[in-house]
Amino acid sequence: MYLFTNSEGNIILESVKIPESTIERLAIYLRKIEELYDKGYSIISSEKLANVCKVNPAQIRKDLSYFGEFGVRGVGYEISELMREIKRILDTGRVWRLALVGVGNIGSAILRHKNFYKRGYNFIAAFDIDPQKIGREVIQGIKVQPMEELEDTVKRLNIEIGVITTPSTSAREVCRALVNAGIKAILNFSPIFLRSRKGCIVENMDFTIKLDNLAYHLCQLEGKNFSK
Amino acid sequence: MYLFTNSEGNIILESVKIPESTIERLAIYLRKIEELYDKGYSIISSEKLANVCKVNPAQIRKDLSYFGEFGVRGVGYEISELMREIKRILDTGRVWRLALVGVGNIGSAILRHKNFYKRGYNFIAAFDIDPQKIGREVIQGIKVQPMEELEDTVKRLNIEIGVITTPSTSAREVCRALVNAGIKAILNFSPIFLRSRKGCIVENMDFTIKLDNLAYHLCQLEGKNFSK
Repeated sequence: MYLFTNSEGNIILESVKIPESTIERLAIYLRKIEELYDKGYSIISSEKLANVCKVNPAQIRKDLSYFGEFGVRGVGYEISELMREIKRILDTGRVWRLALVGVGNIGSAILRHKNFYKRGYNFIAAFDIDPQKIGREVIQGIKVQPMEELEDTVKRLNIEIGVITTPSTSAREVCRALVNAGIKAILNFSPIFLRSRKGCIVENMDFTIKLDNLAYHLCQLEGKNFSK
Repeated sequence: MYLFTNSEGNIILESVKIPESTIERLAIYLRKIEELYDKGYSIISSEKLANVCKVNPAQIRKDLSYFGEFGVRGVGYEISELMREIKRILDTGRVWRLALVGVGNIGSAILRHKNFYKRGYNFIAAFDIDPQKIGREVIQGIKVQPMEELEDTVKRLNIEIGVITTPSTSAREVCRALVNAGIKAILNFSPIFLRSRKGCIVENMDFTIKLDNLAYHLCQLEGKNFSK
């Protein structure tokens, strides 16, 4: 967001599109800053913060500059202020309501993962098509529901984010069902790549893409690539 | 990699550093191309490929240009050739040997996840510190081993990639143990951010960072951000 004065002398508040990569880095900075805060640090330079976050200092300064002036030149950032500001930007103080579809191995593990709740991401419903799973209390307070109840439950419980942990064969259909139910944000763990669409943003988490990246670097280390 | 002629007229093969983001996108392109191939497509334009992969056509052309000439101007890419070339670049034909540390909910789910094996990422050992888990056959052929056996097992079984699924409190220590055992690539699922170090590249998979990104976009959609 920028403030500027137009030709008539009025102050204009213009919101700029912040790159997705900046938002993702802010979430990373926040985690590091929280760690430093817990350890009792109060000030950090952009160089030091850049170093612990594995980005260059210019990148950090650029990322934070989208949101106004931070820090004191030559001194650094006050950790508690920086933490508060990034939390405000990312709106992480809030509790989000999630539904998960696909209560298999990964789905069950994610429902039980404490880190989601710690960060304000609360699962409040879970769905599956397997009659053996429907009705089972997968975690305390959450019984697996059939897909037919998805739309009604999403609306009734005001669910905001959908998490897909089905096999890839049904991911696309589940995605459509979530969008039809009014969900505007989806985290997809299935190995199929789902596109964002009008009114619904999708983040894909295919673990093997990260492994491909590691494998490529291993080949580079071994000097084996291109030599076949 | 580029071929060029130096001042003495010798042909020089220079390897260029390919950005990590390009490697990650190549892995995404590959998944889409495989899907198209399975559906019987034989040719695709960079515009169409860009569209299904959610990037712009110039980006695809730039990504592929690191590896030489692909495709025919005005026609597009031959899908089978493109698939073969990206596989060669990423070296995905190979089978990789993985060890997992931390056999909790997420760890067990990952060990059982078929997609890893399908893509050539084979778990061949698993470790934990919990005496209750040690000795248990978590998946067929893999018994949970104590951490004391890590170094010896990694060397004996030629393990190349380490996967961390411990709580964040022990992730750093586990990372050190993996590096000491000679592991050069680590995929970290614990919610603590681990840095790459000399000789060992680390990829971090903190699910909640993607959720922060989704939450931010939801706020934008609702027009609620900055208005507090």
